[in-house]
Amino acid sequence: MTYADRWLLPDGVEEILPAEAKAIDSLRRHLLDLYSTWGYDMVIPPLLEYTDSLLIGLGRDVDLLTFKVTDQLSGRTLGIRADITPQTARMDAHSFKRTGANRLCYAGHVVHTRPKNPLATRTPIQAGLEFYGEPGIAADIEVVSLLLESLKVAGLSRQHIDLGHVGIYRAIATDAGLSKAQEDAFFELLQRKATTEIRSWVAANIVDANKALLFLALPSLAGDKQVLAKARELFSLVPAASAAVDQLAQVAQVIEQRYPSAELYFDLGELRGYHYLTGLVFAAFAPGYGNPIASGGRYDHIGEVFGRARPATGFAVDITAISKLGLLQKGQVTAIAVVETADPLQWQTVQTLRLQGERVMAVSVNADLAELGCDRQLVLRDGSYQVVAC
Amino acid sequence: MTYADRWLLPDGVEEILPAEAKAIDSLRRHLLDLYSTWGYDMVIPPLLEYTDSLLIGLGRDVDLLTFKVTDQLSGRTLGIRADITPQTARMDAHSFKRTGANRLCYAGHVVHTRPKNPLATRTPIQAGLEFYGEPGIAADIEVVSLLLESLKVAGLSRQHIDLGHVGIYRAIATDAGLSKAQEDAFFELLQRKATTEIRSWVAANIVDANKALLFLALPSLAGDKQVLAKARELFSLVPAASAAVDQLAQVAQVIEQRYPSAELYFDLGELRGYHYLTGLVFAAFAPGYGNPIASGGRYDHIGEVFGRARPATGFAVDITAISKLGLLQKGQVTAIAVVETADPLQWQTVQTLRLQGERVMAVSVNADLAELGCDRQLVLRDGSYQVVAC
Repeated sequence: MTYADRWLLPDGVEEILPAEAKAIDSLRRHLLDLYSTWGYDMVIPPLLEYTDSLLIGLGRDVDLLTFKVTDQLSGRTLGIRADITPQTARMDAHSFKRTGANRLCYAGHVVHTRPKNPLATRTPIQAGLEFYGEPGIAADIEVVSLLLESLKVAGLSRQHIDLGHVGIYRAIATDAGLSKAQEDAFFELLQRKATTEIRSWVAANIVDANKALLFLALPSLAGDKQVLAKARELFSLVPAASAAVDQLAQVAQVIEQRYPSAELYFDLGELRGYHYLTGLVFAAFAPGYGNPIASGGRYDHIGEVFGRARPATGFAVDITAISKLGLLQKGQVTAIAVVETADPLQWQTVQTLRLQGERVMAVSVNADLAELGCDRQLVLRDGSYQVVAC
Repeated sequence: MTYADRWLLPDGVEEILPAEAKAIDSLRRHLLDLYSTWGYDMVIPPLLEYTDSLLIGLGRDVDLLTFKVTDQLSGRTLGIRADITPQTARMDAHSFKRTGANRLCYAGHVVHTRPKNPLATRTPIQAGLEFYGEPGIAADIEVVSLLLESLKVAGLSRQHIDLGHVGIYRAIATDAGLSKAQEDAFFELLQRKATTEIRSWVAANIVDANKALLFLALPSLAGDKQVLAKARELFSLVPAASAAVDQLAQVAQVIEQRYPSAELYFDLGELRGYHYLTGLVFAAFAPGYGNPIASGGRYDHIGEVFGRARPATGFAVDITAISKLGLLQKGQVTAIAVVETADPLQWQTVQTLRLQGERVMAVSVNADLAELGCDRQLVLRDGSYQVVAC
């Protein structure tokens, strides 16, 4: 084992150095404080638990992303959490007696076996929230509002979010009588925006020409508000799809009133998390980062495996990705240098300065004050301690 | 898989619910802020890295406590960190250009394969700090001071710390010409305070009667300051041991001046971390918890495996253990309920209240306000929004 080997971190695993750590911790605090003012209670789920509780049908992706170890106490398999949402669902189902709304928030590391995308770290820090127990659109509006508030707190001058609704595709698939295999096949094409293949698949699978039109239209239903008007017309004969479009429109209307500067983009063919989401789906993007910096949606069935299928909606913010955008404030902390003596008055002065929030650093006489970040020093002049420039 | 199985957490793995989570997060913030005012820069080391960097001679205990997984990208073994200190040592050696003092602090989860003691969780949250690059006693004094400051921040009305120095035993072992095997054998007896066995071991292994006295005295050198006077006399013929006692006395003297109410207890036979510590060793205890709630010491060689053996001293505070003491403030957050309407003035009023730090919770008309923790509500009266008691 050479020194260099010991120094190296695994690919995609990062340590965070002071300037960035301070900015990240500050964002973490601001987000948790924000969520608290909206009524969200912080919880701290464990870093690992039985895979039986962690891998609850959120898709094969989460399974592959989860490191597994054997519990020496029980012999069962533990997973290092790759996602915090299943943990809060378990907690809502089991650890709370709340029968009505239950608002929970969290912040912490998750660990992935592989980077989720080429830019991502394998140990991202997330903050997020989940709103359980409220089936109505008011909860969706609240959660999207909080996503926008989070982006503001993160320093994004433009708040850009994509909105979709998995209920639209689900409705037209049901309406067209698609089998599960067919539904999955078209979903896969849609995810790839594979236009040519979509056309031939629809020709081969959807006999009714009017219904076929809906499938063909789906990938192109992306853009500003006009998309919703177009969709309402298109899907008028499929009530469940229309209802989903109406929900989207209602959410968008309130969000526009509350956040006139937010940029809303609708993408009805966007089905991120289709396998477990049940309603609204949304993600936030920022210039310079190709993947979402935050994403979420409604996933009403998540608590089912824990015996309590409650309405649920929420999102997670990728704090590490936001930090990479370089927008976080990284103010340098300046310090006051002090060469300590046995004088009790010096000690009292130093402690008072620290209580006032100043950084006071004990230094040796020959210390390199610039390297230590000291721009001032505490000196004894005319019988009293004074802070003077270095 | 039954519902109950999915609900269960592994033994010794805990989730933290709102009242406690808030208190823990508050303590975490206060400790990091405290450390910052003393000049410590926060770092965020990753949750996992190569075992080659994590298991660097801190003893077999840490190895056994560390969960290992295979890195799918490199095929090498990764460890989930069981201790953050080796990570900061690697960072000091490799990630900083600082040639002088380097003060680092951190807060985060560690994970243990087994509880370290019967009361402990396997996923404790720690906060801690490390002071690199300063060989002098000033660094020891600073670190012990910060341990006491940490205990105050944690709400302990009595600050009780045990102080020892591994240099004493090391010196008399060298002086008596013990082999490594002999040194380890006596060390093991000493840890167990196995008085009878100690007596027969000394009789069998230490020929010189004067030297034997020193070994026999070690287990009983525990108590208040008087212990140091006694030790100074006893070890007067072993210079390295005397020097260690003097160091202890100097630290104690300054600490007593700075923190007159602190309870200092000396235990010269206490050798926690003997295999990697090189000087002062200390731990903090609290009534009602049999294990240390914080511990640390000097470990000057830790960076050697990373090619940079710098002086180092520091400690970690077990935030989870402190939380179990029940001393943390758990103030209930009260909320203002609001039944949302489309009125923009209501929205503005709510947002203003939130910016002022109030918790304002959107509720449905029939919501159980008591369950939600709402003691006030926002109502429209005489054309303006007012906060009134529920």
